[in-house]
Amino acid sequence: MNIEEVRSLVRHELPLERYEHTLRVAETAVELATMYDTNVRHAELSALLHDVAKYRTPEELKQYIQHSSLPNDLLDYHHELWHGPVGSMIARDEYGIDCLDIQQAIRYHTTGREGMSTLELVIFVADYIEPGRKIPGINDVRQQVKVNLIEAAWMVSSRTIEHLMNKRVTIYPDTFYAYNDLTRRFYNNSYEPTEINN
Amino acid sequence: MNIEEVRSLVRHELPLERYEHTLRVAETAVELATMYDTNVRHAELSALLHDVAKYRTPEELKQYIQHSSLPNDLLDYHHELWHGPVGSMIARDEYGIDCLDIQQAIRYHTTGREGMSTLELVIFVADYIEPGRKIPGINDVRQQVKVNLIEAAWMVSSRTIEHLMNKRVTIYPDTFYAYNDLTRRFYNNSYEPTEINN
Repeated sequence: MNIEEVRSLVRHELPLERYEHTLRVAETAVELATMYDTNVRHAELSALLHDVAKYRTPEELKQYIQHSSLPNDLLDYHHELWHGPVGSMIARDEYGIDCLDIQQAIRYHTTGREGMSTLELVIFVADYIEPGRKIPGINDVRQQVKVNLIEAAWMVSSRTIEHLMNKRVTIYPDTFYAYNDLTRRFYNNSYEPTEINN
Repeated sequence: MNIEEVRSLVRHELPLERYEHTLRVAETAVELATMYDTNVRHAELSALLHDVAKYRTPEELKQYIQHSSLPNDLLDYHHELWHGPVGSMIARDEYGIDCLDIQQAIRYHTTGREGMSTLELVIFVADYIEPGRKIPGINDVRQQVKVNLIEAAWMVSSRTIEHLMNKRVTIYPDTFYAYNDLTRRFYNNSYEPTEINN
């Protein structure tokens, strides 16, 4: 399936607004892939397909998870988390995407995970910073991604955790593992203990 | 060993300032244990012993972890996390504390964990709010603990995560598991997805 065919099929999976978000993520992902020297076509395909499952019903997503190799503990968390993992299966089964790197980029675009590849980082960050997003402080991330992709991903990860804590909701473990891994990859973990941690 | 003997031995383990913190945690823990109807003597013992290992050297703490049943992945994280788990072993081996609930309250006082008992919650919160602590916004926690212990523990947990993220350091998984568990226990997880999580 070529990129035009993927685009045209995805168009029918999504309402216009979400499809336009998808196109902006693809545009941003292509820029980042070029900047960080990873496969541009893979970046575009991953971005076009990252939300492919977003408008399947929670019931359909749940069925998919129960009858696939995806971890069932996803069902203990908010259904907002299900479309990434199910999207990676749909990309494989309905769009013939064999490339594991693309599958993972789709699967982990919401949570991140420990040990993300450059392509996964590109999609994780592009989804957050595409030009249509209006999130307080987002321009800091847009600036930082020009300097260091890992640090930009760290910013997305920590801001996502903060956002979820502010909403008083549970956080899927991969989100935390991504934070710890990105912290290890970017910062040297020098640490001055203060009263609060005693 | 009676409480006076524990107090006297702990006095020799700690510099004066830390010992005074310990006494304030004990006082706060006794108040909370009374308020939430858990064993007051256990609360006082747990509090007196919670920092017993804090001034052992990192090298000694490391040896202890390597030659005990404690999880070795502690060694992948900052040594600030080691004194709780090692303290629980010292309480058992050097102070004759057989009560598992007290051991766990000491062990998890820094991170928390999934499924904390009332005693563990009391020590986790008392260590954070004792009257000597000067942490921005701490009075909110001091107020809330009079209303609901789980919510106060949730506040401690989420603020600790935020504090560690601001310091750009890795976060031990039990800290995250505590947050998720407290979120499930206190909030109903009603959740309106917003752009940021897509």
